[in-house]
Order: sequence, then C-alpha cells, then structure tokens
Amino acid sequence: MSEPKKIIEPRTLKGFRDFLPEMMIPREKMIARVSEVYRSYGYSPIDTPVLEYLEILSGKGSDETDRQLYRFKDHGGREVGMRFDLTVPFARFSAQHAAELVLPFKRYHIAKVWRGENTQAGRYREFSQCDFDVIGTTSTLSDIETALVINDVMQRIDLRSDGTFTRFKIHVNSRKILNGLLEKIGLAEKAVPVLRALDKLAKIGREKVIAEMAETAGAAQSQAEEILDVVGCGADAAADPRRRLDELAVRLAGNGLGLEGVETLREIFDAARAVGLPDGRFVLDVSIARGLDYYTGTIFETFLDDLPSLGSVASGGRYDNLAGLYTKTPLPGIGASLGIDRLFAGLEELGMIDRVSSPVRVLIPYFDRTLSREYIRLAALLRRGGVGAEVYPEPKKLGQQLKYADRKGFSAALILGSGELEKGVIQVKNLKTQTQEDVPYAEGGEELLAYLERLLNG
Amino acid sequence: MSEPKKIIEPRTLKGFRDFLPEMMIPREKMIARVSEVYRSYGYSPIDTPVLEYLEILSGKGSDETDRQLYRFKDHGGREVGMRFDLTVPFARFSAQHAAELVLPFKRYHIAKVWRGENTQAGRYREFSQCDFDVIGTTSTLSDIETALVINDVMQRIDLRSDGTFTRFKIHVNSRKILNGLLEKIGLAEKAVPVLRALDKLAKIGREKVIAEMAETAGAAQSQAEEILDVVGCGADAAADPRRRLDELAVRLAGNGLGLEGVETLREIFDAARAVGLPDGRFVLDVSIARGLDYYTGTIFETFLDDLPSLGSVASGGRYDNLAGLYTKTPLPGIGASLGIDRLFAGLEELGMIDRVSSPVRVLIPYFDRTLSREYIRLAALLRRGGVGAEVYPEPKKLGQQLKYADRKGFSAALILGSGELEKGVIQVKNLKTQTQEDVPYAEGGEELLAYLERLLNG
Repeated sequence: MSEPKKIIEPRTLKGFRDFLPEMMIPREKMIARVSEVYRSYGYSPIDTPVLEYLEILSGKGSDETDRQLYRFKDHGGREVGMRFDLTVPFARFSAQHAAELVLPFKRYHIAKVWRGENTQAGRYREFSQCDFDVIGTTSTLSDIETALVINDVMQRIDLRSDGTFTRFKIHVNSRKILNGLLEKIGLAEKAVPVLRALDKLAKIGREKVIAEMAETAGAAQSQAEEILDVVGCGADAAADPRRRLDELAVRLAGNGLGLEGVETLREIFDAARAVGLPDGRFVLDVSIARGLDYYTGTIFETFLDDLPSLGSVASGGRYDNLAGLYTKTPLPGIGASLGIDRLFAGLEELGMIDRVSSPVRVLIPYFDRTLSREYIRLAALLRRGGVGAEVYPEPKKLGQQLKYADRKGFSAALILGSGELEKGVIQVKNLKTQTQEDVPYAEGGEELLAYLERLLNG
Repeated sequence: MSEPKKIIEPRTLKGFRDFLPEMMIPREKMIARVSEVYRSYGYSPIDTPVLEYLEILSGKGSDETDRQLYRFKDHGGREVGMRFDLTVPFARFSAQHAAELVLPFKRYHIAKVWRGENTQAGRYREFSQCDFDVIGTTSTLSDIETALVINDVMQRIDLRSDGTFTRFKIHVNSRKILNGLLEKIGLAEKAVPVLRALDKLAKIGREKVIAEMAETAGAAQSQAEEILDVVGCGADAAADPRRRLDELAVRLAGNGLGLEGVETLREIFDAARAVGLPDGRFVLDVSIARGLDYYTGTIFETFLDDLPSLGSVASGGRYDNLAGLYTKTPLPGIGASLGIDRLFAGLEELGMIDRVSSPVRVLIPYFDRTLSREYIRLAALLRRGGVGAEVYPEPKKLGQQLKYADRKGFSAALILGSGELEKGVIQVKNLKTQTQEDVPYAEGGEELLAYLERLLNG
C-alpha cells in the first residue's frame, strides 16, 4: 500500500551500543545479584530523572565532566543536562526530600549515565553505575558494612555458579591517616600538592617525589621522608595489617585525626575476621587516595586477582558532606559503586561469562500442525510448575527447530507428536548429551516436571 | 574549610520525578514479576541506547511525538534525540543486527522513554515502557502466546499477595475483520475516514456516524449500516464470543482476509479455554482499533474491572512489517506493552499498593556500644540464612531505634544486649503485634532463622 521509501541506515551513535540477549541476560543476572546484596543490608532502591536542570549538574564534577556533559535547551527553553553520575543526583535528591527521608537513609541506584568523552580504549559514552550509600551517620559501623557489602557483591560475580568467588582483594585506607600526618608535621594546608606528588611515586621514584614535595608544597627533606614512610607502611600486602596499623598509630601518636583513621581501619579488619572472611581479603593500602576533594575518611578499591591491570571494579569511601551545594544541612555518609561495565569487560576477558541467548532452557518444537493447542497446554503446565518454556511458533520440520534450539543454547527439547500423545508420554531430548527418553505425561505433569528439574540442574 | 557558597535550589524539571523507596520498592517488584513472565515464554531482555541519531527517531511516530522529541546537537555536531518509545529503537535494532539475530526473535525491553508533552492530567515527560514482541513469524501461535502473556502478567499485578489477580479483562479484535468487510463492500481504500467516524460512535451516536461516513468516505447508507452492524457484533460482552464469531463469519463470507481474522480470534478463545482460563477473561470487541497505520491483525487492550476509566493498561497487536524504514527485509511480528506508570496510578487509586520503605523486614538495633561486632555477626548470619537485615548504624537509645523501625515499616526487631548474650538468646520483638519472645541464639542460628521464617511469613 505504501510508496517505496529510501532506507535509513540503521546505526547507533559512536560510543553507544545495543545489548543483545547474550550480553543482556548475564547483565540482568549480575544486576539482580548486586541488588539482592544491597537490599539484604537494608539499602533501598531509588530512581531519579535522566535529565536535570543544568545548574544542578554543571560544576559538580571535574572540568572534564563539565566538558563531557550532554546539555541542551528543552522545549520550555530551560538549560538541561543528562546526568553524568549518580552521586550528584543523589545529593540533589537528599536535599530536596530532606523532610521525607528518615535518617540514616540507605539507598542504592543502578542506572545509566552519559559522558561525551573520547571513545578510545573501549570507553563508552553511555554506561551504567551501581551505587549504594548510607547518609546521615558518621558511625564506624557504616564503614564496616560498606566493606562487607563490597565483599558480598564481589563474592557473587561469578555468574557461572552460585558458589562464592574469592579471587579478589579489597584495598582499604583512610584519608584521615595522611591528613592527620600532614596536620602533625604542619603541612595540613599542602594536602593537594603533597598528594599530587605522591601519586607519581611508582612512576618517578622516591627521590623525585621528595624533590617535587619540596618545590610544590615547601616540604623539608625530613617531612617528605616521613610522609613516604607512612605511605610505605601500606606497601607490603603480605604483612599483617594489624601490625602495620600499630606502626601507623606510633607514627601518628598525638594526632587525633590520624589515630581515628587507624582505629576505623582496625575495626574493619576485626569485623572481617568476626564474620569469617579469610585474612588477606582486605588489604591495608595507605597509597590509595581516590581523588582529592570529596572523600574524608575510609576509602576502598577492589581488584581482581587475575586481572589487576583492569583497575578497581568497586570503589568508594566516606565523605563529610554529600549535598553542601543544595542544602545547609550537613549530610555525612559513606558508599561505594560497582563499575559494572568495567567488571563485565574483565569477566569476559577471563572467560567467566557464559553466552546464552535464551532466558529459558526448554524448547517445545511445533511440528504437528494439528497439535498446536497441545503445545500451548504443555508450556502452560511447565510454567505453572516453575519451568519456563518456549514454544516454537511455526510448524516447521523438526530438524530445523532443533537447529534453532542449538543456536540459542536450549538444554532440552520436549517432543510431542500424535504417537507420544497416544502413549501418554513426552519424548525429552537432552540437547547437551543428544540422548532422549520417553517420560510419562499426565494431568498435572508432576513426573515430567521432576524429570526436567533433574535434567536442568544435574 | 571551604568558603560559604550560594545554595542551589534542589528541584526536578517539570514533568520529571524522583522515585523514593516507598514507590520504588513496589515498582521493582512489579518489574521483576513482569520480566519473570516475559522470560518464562522465552522473551529475552535487550537494551538500546537512550540517544539515537535524530533521523532514526523523527518522522517515525506521529506529528505529536515529533514535536515532543527531546533533540539536540551532540559534541560531535550530530543531530541526536532521546527515544520517545521502545518500538522505533527495536525496529532499528532488528534491521541493524539482522545477521546476528536468529528468527523468530523474541525480545522484551523495560526502559524509560521521554516526551516533552504537556504535563497536565498527571502525565510525565519521563516514563517507562515494558514491551515484548516476537518478530519473524506470522503464526497464529504467536497471537495466542501474546494473549497469554498479557493474561499472565495481569494475573500477577496485585503486589500485596502471590495469588492470582482476576479482576481484569482483555479485549481482542482483529484489524482484518473490518478491513475484510471494507474490502467486501468495496470501501477498502476508505479505511481511514471510516475508522475515524467509527471512533466517534459512543460520542455522537449511530445516525451521525452514518452521516459522517457518507460525507468523508462516500459510504452508502446500506454500507455504513453493514459496518455498524459488524462492529455491533462485538458490543455485547456477555454474549458467547464463539457465537458472535460465527455471526461475523457469516457476514464476512467469501472474504479471505476477514475470515482469517475471525479464525485467529477463534483460536485465541479456544486456547484460553485449553489452558484453563475462565470464560470472559477475553472479550471480543470489534470496536477497538488502536491507531490507524501500524497494526494489521490481532489487537489487544486490557482494562481493570474496578477502574475501566483508567483506559487500557496493556495493549498491542500484530503488524506486517516492523522495520521497513531501515531494511528491505519484511519483519512481521506481534507484541504488546504494559503501561506500568498508568497501571501503578490505577493500583494506587484502588489501594492495592502497600507502602513500605525498607527492602528488609528485620532491624537489629545497636544500643550497646560494646557489642557492635556482635550485631554485625548476627546480621551476617541472618543474610547467609536468606533473611535480609539492617543494623542500625548508631548506638542510640533503643526507643529511638524502635521508632525508626516503625516509621520504615520493619516487621521485627532483634534485641541483643549483654543479658541476652549471656543467656544465649535473642529477644525477638514482633513489631506488628508488639509482643516479644526470647529465642535461642547459637552457632549457626538455625532455631532463630526458623523462628523468623515463621514470624515473617505467618
């Protein structure tokens, strides 16, 4: 009926991507597991708009995030932007709903964010974040819980099994340690240049860092050395963290801030042991800083044992004031974020993602045209018994449908022809072993369901 | 340390909204249930970018959606837009990945879309859609399955229970019936003005519709009456749909298209009976049309018995060609969409949404400062046993913490002081009945877990 039209090339924008079922099925599984952990600690889901007033978003991250902001004028002439992270919207949210929220308030938010950045090196302009935070408390118990949430999430990232994944380490530090030391040695105002120099330690070496500290922070040789020695306390991952915390406590003696940091870390290590986590799961690492401005206490980074080069896949920390730009009420808190896109890239590299493209494992071929209603009934019976099933929609040759089952990764095909119907059986074809068996099929289907349970979970 | 800053007013854009936990927890539950149903039929999750090339989006909906499109130039000067539905992105997706997709291809997509429309009457500029479709088949079996998926989803919308919700009806029709009739009486080219006139039936009455059909479609009195009689076959919801289909078959005798439509509807009614659905769940309604251009076969609309004024909460139908704008390969299919925002508004109006603002039901108060590690251990033990628990993060007065538990809707508080610890018990406080009991608490915690299971599910 319609005129022939010019075909528009179907394509996605650079830095954006579609998720096909074989990627989306494991992602959904991961997100379900992560949510389950967050929820089990009492973190509630929230959601915020993708678009915010530009003034809410701009100037809240770095110069870089400002440049990368997707911004435009909406229909009403308002300057708006697409969120570039989930922290700024949460800050706005917390200030806006202060009267409704019961503090302490625990939330998680799993959603997409957008940054118009260069797309080299496998980076995307649209990606997902999985944040959790508790605000309205400065209690060490929340530091401990944040550590345990990260641990529990990481323990479940191996989607191939329901078992406990253990090949990761969570590095912990407290910003209070270095800030306390700088206070103690009279360099409190020089935290930024000191951290900037420290950040280069691995690259330029101890001597050049000391020289830079002298130049940019006015640090004497002895001061710079003391700083490097304290950071060095965290360098030996094999040493007992408790002994190293004792050493730090000596070096920080008399400085309240620094000792507070040491004490909180000690409580985290003790709690990890109390809940039965293996020693070594948490690593004291005084060298991690996670940016200069935002964090004020405990900080976390998480690395895969088998792919440390991936960088941290779960990071976060404590802050004194989440929403100072939007409210005068201070909102201290602590939280972290799972970098799900980075983590997925890592798991794929490690061969830890099984590619399936069907959410169900049972196919019911439709090869006898007169039996379509029987196929529908059989599928309904299976679903009621908790076993998802797909009915092939067209009465094609059985061989063609089994090829389809194979390409999509089904585990079993349930073959029902007039012969089976007469005998009161279903021929269950195990597609992995390529064997088949006749299984009684009667009202209720208990025997068939039990057989499938065994086949699918065996 | 930082200078006093001007506070930026925390606010959301007009037509946009935050979801607080008490709204988000039931939404997530609903989405989990909907996904579970979609998946149990073999529909796989996919995702597409929020931003698309403007040429992909514009001119694909109505003039109205074009006007409402959020569009702008990105950093690279590309004209881009935010998706206004999930169908256009799916069409683009299907054309782009044609080589990778195994047909028939079943997908679902639950995601946000944006329309800069007038916000009167509780409409939002950011809302969610829950679409499912199968493409690459014209089989009636897919029409049947689509009907059953809508039914199964609706049966689970009462979030207060795991039971079967039944107070809804699914209206079905086929575009082939009216198109077949128009073909038969020689008005095939006049479908648009005929439908436009028909649409006003309830408002302006039979006589005026006949007059309009004469004027705009050149329909003779007898033609217009025949059209109205056929539509009238669907007017009596109490009548047996099979008898009404027989009547339609007589009126459409000799017209292949119309009879095909009747036959497909008959198969849907038969299948509903075969899987045990009550008669009356599906209603033959020849008056529904769902827009003029897109649908070509079976169409569905779904209404709540107790709130018909809400309009359809789950709608869809069959189409001949999903992606004709992006590929020359015809992709016929059928699908539908749950209007989750509208549905939620309706469920709230009917008092069917329980407001809870905690994802877990057990609170562990922290009132003895020396026992913080015990609280952490207790919570870890519960989580391992499958019971989520929140530890109150600060050592405040017990009364204050119980007030918090009350405001957030917890069901139980687990009280552990030095007295309980000595006796090897936990005082379990049932917050609904305001009663408490000492429950043995030993290594493993089996007795405590069993007690809580009973309390939470009893």
